[in-house]
Amino acid sequence: MPEYLYSLDFQVRDYEIDMQGIVNNAVYQNYLEHTRHEFLKECGIDFAAYTMGKINLVVVRVEIDYKFPLQSGDRFRVGLNLIKESRLRFAFHQDIHRYPDDKPILKAKVVGTSLNPQGRPAVSPELEQALAKLNLPGF
Amino acid sequence: MPEYLYSLDFQVRDYEIDMQGIVNNAVYQNYLEHTRHEFLKECGIDFAAYTMGKINLVVVRVEIDYKFPLQSGDRFRVGLNLIKESRLRFAFHQDIHRYPDDKPILKAKVVGTSLNPQGRPAVSPELEQALAKLNLPGF
Amino acid sequence: MPEYLYSLDFQVRDYEIDMQGIVNNAVYQNYLEHTRHEFLKECGIDFAAYTMGKINLVVVRVEIDYKFPLQSGDRFRVGLNLIKESRLRFAFHQDIHRYPDDKPILKAKVVGTSLNPQGRPAVSPELEQALAKLNLPGF
Amino acid sequence: MPEYLYSLDFQVRDYEIDMQGIVNNAVYQNYLEHTRHEFLKECGIDFAAYTMGKINLVVVRVEIDYKFPLQSGDRFRVGLNLIKESRLRFAFHQDIHRYPDDKPILKAKVVGTSLNPQGRPAVSPELEQALAKLNLPGF
Repeated sequence: MPEYLYSLDFQVRDYEIDMQGIVNNAVYQNYLEHTRHEFLKECGIDFAAYTMGKINLVVVRVEIDYKFPLQSGDRFRVGLNLIKESRLRFAFHQDIHRYPDDKPILKAKVVGTSLNPQGRPAVSPELEQALAKLNLPGF
Repeated sequence: MPEYLYSLDFQVRDYEIDMQGIVNNAVYQNYLEHTRHEFLKECGIDFAAYTMGKINLVVVRVEIDYKFPLQSGDRFRVGLNLIKESRLRFAFHQDIHRYPDDKPILKAKVVGTSLNPQGRPAVSPELEQALAKLNLPGF
Repeated sequence: MPEYLYSLDFQVRDYEIDMQGIVNNAVYQNYLEHTRHEFLKECGIDFAAYTMGKINLVVVRVEIDYKFPLQSGDRFRVGLNLIKESRLRFAFHQDIHRYPDDKPILKAKVVGTSLNPQGRPAVSPELEQALAKLNLPGF
Repeated sequence: MPEYLYSLDFQVRDYEIDMQGIVNNAVYQNYLEHTRHEFLKECGIDFAAYTMGKINLVVVRVEIDYKFPLQSGDRFRVGLNLIKESRLRFAFHQDIHRYPDDKPILKAKVVGTSLNPQGRPAVSPELEQALAKLNLPGF
């Protein structure tokens, strides 16, 4: 596996499996979202607190390549890297590998932005500061 | 907390939260199901393998008392006890407590049975044996 | 089918089907909730608007009997009746029948209450009025 | 709205709304999937029947641009076009517009293929025939 800024371990739950006996496509977005939110929390950015403060972190684009399906009981790891694409666009590169055999499951790019209380794209000073601490490419 | 035959730890994920800022009612059934399946797996009963073998473990009744809602980031524990209600009905008593303050969140009784490949309630010798090993009340 | 105060038609969507090839248990709570919210909207009670106004309509107890599973493509109808159990508890009796053969699928009782902005059970005058218009048993 | 080969109408259900008061990102994939399956059924391709026959129609890539969020009670239409990208890859172009004001909500490209009982990409004669009847670009 390549190196990641952050990674989180999961296990497939049976209610996430569809009639084909594999994890449903949409469910992977849940895994990706939860990983981003846990990562952000580690950076001092609490998604729920931001939401309550009327700052909405939103996804504007996703690209997902499904490589191999997860099945009942599978353990897996979601790795995450973050690149600043522009002043207002942040690209999360998120890969899923099955654990422990490292089989590639999914590759995703999720582009997000931040909306101010008026619903306009804007990065608050607080968010800017939290992200600056990461010393990431593009930041 | 009372004593449980089995318990499993979880953390709320933000996609499980609804517009009220709390975990949606239906989501708790996911938590309860995942806990039952993990417990069954420990007993040597793999839900997915049974399904593939045309033995369907199904829920026939649930009773859930919602006591206090879970919120973003909350950690919690699902405790489980199992009682044989009749030859063909198994009652899972499942409680959720917030962690670490033990605040009671939910109390549930989930009654399940097993269907044979013809769709009739029937407990296979294999399932009977796996459950007998638990030395549970009613078994 | 018995007579219902309100009913709503649905069709199973494939993402709601689990590895057993039937609608997952938790998903029925989604059907039941959507039916309640549509019914309430017809009565002039907009769940989302109430939520924004810090009045939270919440479920305190559910009882569900699962009689026969829904499968891919099935059409069904959720019927609803409402009874006032006490000053602060409202019982929705909700049944699901498959359409058009009226096969009974599920029988549920869902007890709800209303929380004021301080999180205490309380029925606002506005809610009281909207419900009074229905001339229901117990109201 | 541009012209679509197929379109399906929906209404947002409150359990699909997240803490931001908008439909959660992952839920849109449910809407898109249900629309594809309904379209395929109209073409004589029953996803569930194919699955039972060990022919798995799977998604290999999605690209989604989120333009404006859906909210509680919103009605919307998912339009679909289909292009054959290669012998084994089918691209569904799916747009969501709010109804009735036609506000663009989401633009997606979902690439699918068909796996034979051995899990290899392969288009069965039956599937080939059903798709040929559509007289689509690339087919």
